[in-house]
This record gives sequence, C-alpha cells and structure tokens, in this order.
Amino acid sequence: MRAVDIIIKKREKQELTSQEIEFFINGFTNGDIPDYQASAFAMAVLLNGMTAHETKDLTLAMAHSGQILDLSNIVDVVVDKHSSGGVGDKTSISVMPMVAACGLPVGKMSGRGLGFSGGTLDKLESIPGYRVDLTTDEFKQQLKEKGIVLTGQSLDLAPADGKMYALRDVTGTVPSTPLIASSIMCKKIAAGATAIVLDVKVGLGAFMETLEEGRKLAKLMVDIGHLAGRKTVALLSDMNQPLGSAVGNSLEMIEAIQLLRGQAPADYYEHCLHVAAHVLVLGGRAKDLSVGRAMAEQCISDGSALEKFRVLVQAQGGDISYVDDVSKFGHAKYIKVVNVPRSGFISQVHARIVGEAAVTLGAGRAKKGDPIDHAVGFIIHKKVGDKVKAGEPLFEVHANDEKKLEEARDSVLSAHKFSDEFVSPLPLFYE
Amino acid sequence: MRAVDIIIKKREKQELTSQEIEFFINGFTNGDIPDYQASAFAMAVLLNGMTAHETKDLTLAMAHSGQILDLSNIVDVVVDKHSSGGVGDKTSISVMPMVAACGLPVGKMSGRGLGFSGGTLDKLESIPGYRVDLTTDEFKQQLKEKGIVLTGQSLDLAPADGKMYALRDVTGTVPSTPLIASSIMCKKIAAGATAIVLDVKVGLGAFMETLEEGRKLAKLMVDIGHLAGRKTVALLSDMNQPLGSAVGNSLEMIEAIQLLRGQAPADYYEHCLHVAAHVLVLGGRAKDLSVGRAMAEQCISDGSALEKFRVLVQAQGGDISYVDDVSKFGHAKYIKVVNVPRSGFISQVHARIVGEAAVTLGAGRAKKGDPIDHAVGFIIHKKVGDKVKAGEPLFEVHANDEKKLEEARDSVLSAHKFSDEFVSPLPLFYE
Repeated sequence: MRAVDIIIKKREKQELTSQEIEFFINGFTNGDIPDYQASAFAMAVLLNGMTAHETKDLTLAMAHSGQILDLSNIVDVVVDKHSSGGVGDKTSISVMPMVAACGLPVGKMSGRGLGFSGGTLDKLESIPGYRVDLTTDEFKQQLKEKGIVLTGQSLDLAPADGKMYALRDVTGTVPSTPLIASSIMCKKIAAGATAIVLDVKVGLGAFMETLEEGRKLAKLMVDIGHLAGRKTVALLSDMNQPLGSAVGNSLEMIEAIQLLRGQAPADYYEHCLHVAAHVLVLGGRAKDLSVGRAMAEQCISDGSALEKFRVLVQAQGGDISYVDDVSKFGHAKYIKVVNVPRSGFISQVHARIVGEAAVTLGAGRAKKGDPIDHAVGFIIHKKVGDKVKAGEPLFEVHANDEKKLEEARDSVLSAHKFSDEFVSPLPLFYE
Repeated sequence: MRAVDIIIKKREKQELTSQEIEFFINGFTNGDIPDYQASAFAMAVLLNGMTAHETKDLTLAMAHSGQILDLSNIVDVVVDKHSSGGVGDKTSISVMPMVAACGLPVGKMSGRGLGFSGGTLDKLESIPGYRVDLTTDEFKQQLKEKGIVLTGQSLDLAPADGKMYALRDVTGTVPSTPLIASSIMCKKIAAGATAIVLDVKVGLGAFMETLEEGRKLAKLMVDIGHLAGRKTVALLSDMNQPLGSAVGNSLEMIEAIQLLRGQAPADYYEHCLHVAAHVLVLGGRAKDLSVGRAMAEQCISDGSALEKFRVLVQAQGGDISYVDDVSKFGHAKYIKVVNVPRSGFISQVHARIVGEAAVTLGAGRAKKGDPIDHAVGFIIHKKVGDKVKAGEPLFEVHANDEKKLEEARDSVLSAHKFSDEFVSPLPLFYE
C-alpha cells in the first residue's frame, strides 16, 4: 500500500477502505507518511468529502493512534458532553457538577479556546491553583473517588488528531465536516466515553453558520458514534447571540458558579437544564427527559450541584474560596457600561463579533500558545427580542487597556442591532 | 500576505492575483513556504482549476524562480519543440537536426523518461560518450558555433518547477491541466525560447487520453505562450499506438538515425516532416507549411540533416561511429520474434501497455533515479489498419532476461487486437 495511491483514490472521489485509512493514519502518526502527503489528503477530503463509513474509519484510526482510556472497571457508564464551540458557552462547567450531583460519574477532558470561540480549560484556570494537566492515573483516581473530573486532554490520547489538527490549521483544511466530526469524536472515543451528548452550535458565532451545516455535522457525528458502538445524541442549539450574559474567562466562570446557586440568566439556566437532562437520560440515571430535568432542577435548589463543584475544584488544587465568594476573582482595570442608544427591540447581538472583540481585549488567542487575560470580557445585558429603552445599560466592557476598551466597545455596539417592530426571541434549541 | 490565505482562496474557487501567485512560488522556492502548504495548494488547484491568467502567472513565477537564459545575442530566434510524452516518440532526435540543417539554430533542453513514457536524454545516452550535462556556457558556445544543442535541463532553470514536480509526484497532484501546462511552459520560457511548437500527444499511451483533454491542455499552453509574449503553436497528434516501430532507447536511437537516412517507418517519417515544417514556419525559415515540408524533405534526401546530427553528436562528446554504423549499438541478449496469431486487420496496438512492458524489460523507470537498460525494447511491425496474415512477424522483443522476455511478450501480444473487418488506420494528427 502506498500513501500516494490513497490520496489519488480520494482525489478521484472513490471510497477508501478501512485498511487504507488505517494505513494512512498510522503512517502519519509514526512519521512514515510526511506532512506534505497528509495535507494533500486533507485538501482532497475537504473538497471531495467522505462517506459516514469512511469518517467512522478515520475517527477510529485516529482514536487508536494512541492509548484508549478504559474506565469500565471504575464506572458503569462514561458520559461525555461536547460542545462544538461558541461565544459565552460555559455549559460544561455548570452541567458536569449537576449531573455528577445526580449520581452520574463524569470524567471530561476539555480543550482551550481558539479564535473567537472560548475554551473550558481557560475558564477553569481563572480559579487560582486549578490544575488542568492531570495524569491518566490521577484522572482515574479522582473519577473513582470524587465522581467528577474536568481536565485537559492528555497528550497520549489520539496523537494523530493533534498532529492533523495543527497541519489543517496552516493548510486551509479546517472547515471540512468529516474532518471536524472525526477530530471531535476520536477524542471522545479515546477518552473512554460510552455515551456522548453533542451540543452542536449553529449560527453567526459558531463554526457551523447554517442549520443545514449544523444538522449535517450533528448527523455525521451521531452516525460515527453509533457505528463505533457508542450511545450518541446531538442537540442543535443557537449560537447567533452569546449564551448567557458573560463573555470572557473569569466572567464566565462567575456566571457558571452563579448558575449552581440558581442565579443565572434565564437562557443559560434553561440551556443547562436541557443539556443535563439529556446527559442523565443517556447515562441511564433518568428514564426520560422530564425526569432528568426535574433531577437537574433539584440538584441546584438543594445545593448539591454547587457542593459537587467545590469537591471538583478542591480535588484539582483550585482555591475554593473563589467558589464561595466570586468577588475574589480578578477584576479588570477598566469597567465601562455602554447604554442602549435608541429605544426599540433588540434584533441582533452578533455572537462572532462579540467573540472576536473578546479576543481583541485579550480574552482569547489569535493563535495557539498565545497568553490570555482572564479578567477581561463583556457582560451582555440584552437578548434578541428584548424591548429596550434608550439610556438603560446594554453591555459592560471589562478591559485592562484603554485603547483596546474603545475598540472593543465600538465592535460590540456594532454587534447589536435594533428594530422598531417586535422581534421574536431566538430559540435556545433547534432540534 | 500569508500562504494559508492563498490556499484558502483557491480552495474557495476564487481567482488568485499575480502578486499572490508570485508570493507563493517565491516562498516555496526559497523554503519559506513548506512542502505541506505547497501540496495542499496543488491539490486545491487540481480539484478547483485555474484560469488561463492564473496559469500564465504561475508559469512566469516558476520561470523566474531561477535564471532566465537570454540567447538573443547568439541567435535571432530560439525555437523550442516540445512533446507531451508518449511511447516510441523519438521525434526531437530527428527533427532538431533537420531544422538545424535548414538554417534554424536549435538549442533544446530535454527530459528523462518516467513511467511508460520514454525520454530524449535516455535515448541520446545510448550513444557512448554523449554528454547531456552541458553547462550554460557550453550550451551557448555550442549553439553559436554549431547551431545545434540537445542536452539536459540545467539545474538553475526554473528551480520552483523541479521542486514542485517532485512534490506533485508523491502527493497525487500530477494530472492537473494548469499544473502540467505551467510546468512545461515555464521551462521553455526559462530556457529562452521565443517560439514554441508543442506536440500534444493524445490517446491510450499519452498523459491526455481524450482529444478533449489534449485540446484543453494545448489551448491552455498556447494561451500561456501568447500571454507571456512567445509565438506558440500546438499540434495534437495520436498516441493510441506507438509512433514508428521502435520502442526502447537504443532501438529508438537507431530508428531516429535511420530516418535521417530516409529509411524510417512511414508514420514516423510523416510525423517528423509535419513537425519540422511547423518549426521552420514558426522560426521564420519557411513562409508556409508546404515550403517547410519541402525543406524538411530536401535536408534528408541531400544528407544535410544526417551531417548536422553527426556535428551534434561529436560536439557533445558522443562516438560518431555509432551514427555511421548503427549495428554498433549494444544488442540485447535475447531477441524473440512473435508472429501474428490470426489473419485479419490490426484494430489496436495499445501504446500504454507497450510502454509499460518496456519498463518491465528495463527500458524505463518505475521511479526517478532508477537505472535503465538501453538495449532492451520492442520493434512493432504492424500498425492499426494493417491487413495481416497468421504467421508473419508481428513484433520483436529485445530482452536481457528470459523471464522478463516472457512477461513482456505476453503483455505486448495482449496490446494487439485483431478484427475480421476492415479497420481504418489511425490519423497521425488530429488538429
């Protein structure tokens, strides 16, 4: 078998066999197949597509390029919840303690933010001391003892994916549905997930801008999950406007903690209940969604979700006084409230513009490895469909640099559109 | 400007600017742009195409990636004749001395064979001592003094093309019309050609299998030539069956020399007259094709073309006794005559199968740098349309290995198809 023949086959829009895909991924992982062949292959896949079967084979080959975590002797079911990424999406930080409090053990490996999209690890690190680099043994130990882990991906899981992703980033081969789907799913499978809840974001602030694209990605990932023998469901949720109010690492961390206290923006609270219900059903802890939802509400009102979060933070070395008193989180030097310029209805809060403005402030990275500023970000007070009056607060900018503050304020103001007519609120979920 | 953005632009089927193409080719040549970006770019070009303007820009950027040979102070016009490659195509070896004998100076740089397609340099090297590695100064000196040079491409011409070609070969990005056209044309331009006659082969033994593909490539190269300010014409000639009778390096060399003596298969003779006439017209030595053709016939009948070839061989260090007595060329150990198995008409002599069988015998290379055997090959006695009787000679195999002989014999026999009905001969030229 020769790598070039596999590239040619894909170039000619033929379906690759499992053996061919395994040969290619194994060769790429161990360095026998050079980057220049892998990038030509990725471009051929991007332009000619892949079938669900090929994508499943690609996913499994990447998952098996390193160690596969086996957690079956620790827990009866391993549920993973994954978001395709968006602006203000701190769902995992709230939902994981919620479901763990309902008796479902969760061990999750998360990623960092890139571009306009935030990352769970960056948000967690705004708690001083919180470690996101647990070893595999520490991961297992904590899952067994505490029933909850929220850490970074260990290096030895799916190394082919890390290598491929870095290459795709610099060769214009990122926006390919099969490559995105396999990249997400191979990590879930390698991390030992037996059940996977996918939260596919759709809209202006998501990688998938249209419902059709989002549906395609969701369906493909569910198909891969099933073909790989994992229970998998996908939700399609809105990412035209930011989720909740907070955008930025500490600000989002605070909002996620406040949710566990029952004090969160309505949309974010509703979103977490819905996701948690799905996780509880898929994890076999609730017989249907309404039972799951009731359990999720209960663990918040009785404080058990918050307590589970304290356990998590303590276990991973974080300072729990921040959980108990969110005013301890580092504040930005400048906080500017921007008011509503005209009365009417909010017709748009462009999530991508807000996300990019957060990167400008220093909350995110333009490229991998860039340092980030945990304190900066925005509080977005209004949602699409809200009736607003001129002069009331529209959003806050938290910045550590005056020039960047001005820039970010102008951007986020331009992200808001107003209408004289009534505007329907955006749905939280599409399907 | 960033390489990844140029790749993305081509991925999105947008037209690149001259600046973008120059930036990419310059970066690739000097190593700033790594192979993995160039291969993703090549795949995007292969799958999404390029306009004539983009292809012209690519050609010029590659031509200018190294030295551009300026021959204007040596000769008034520099005509280059290029064949897109085929089986049994020794045209350059006969045509160059013909047109030089008619007073048109020719300095040509040729390539080696790859895959089923033979190469002029390999054929020339079957004459002991013949040098194909002239320096640029030697090239100029000989062109000035002898009016004829036939050598290999010097390393400093169009280095981007050499680098790109090697990469395309291993990344499945060879069969792209704009990439093929720019690769051919950039070398012609870098070698100083002011007028270019392109012989585009079409058929089973050519890189372009259909007339439509061949026409597209021919038109694109003529467009590039014109956009780059060079006089350019393209001929479309048949390569369904081998050209002439001989296939293999020494055997083709002998046939090319015999042509200069007026003793060659009719199709090959006719082909050479036609190409020579075009070269003479484009080079301004003949006012029209019929005059060019008459000049070409004359230089053969009066022996001046053969004499010019002797001058060439001597100038480049070759043993001219081989030209005077072709029986001196090394013979293969085994020569096997295969007879016609059934009476009827020849309906096919599959050029590609014959070319690949020659590689099996050792006449060609499976990959670059492989050694070759000059003595081995075939003499194909019959042409499509010929009426044949069972038992008369169909072809000869010249081999140095008994096992390979059997294999090649079976292949070439299978390349021949027979019909009971009359079959029209194949045309030599389509357009």
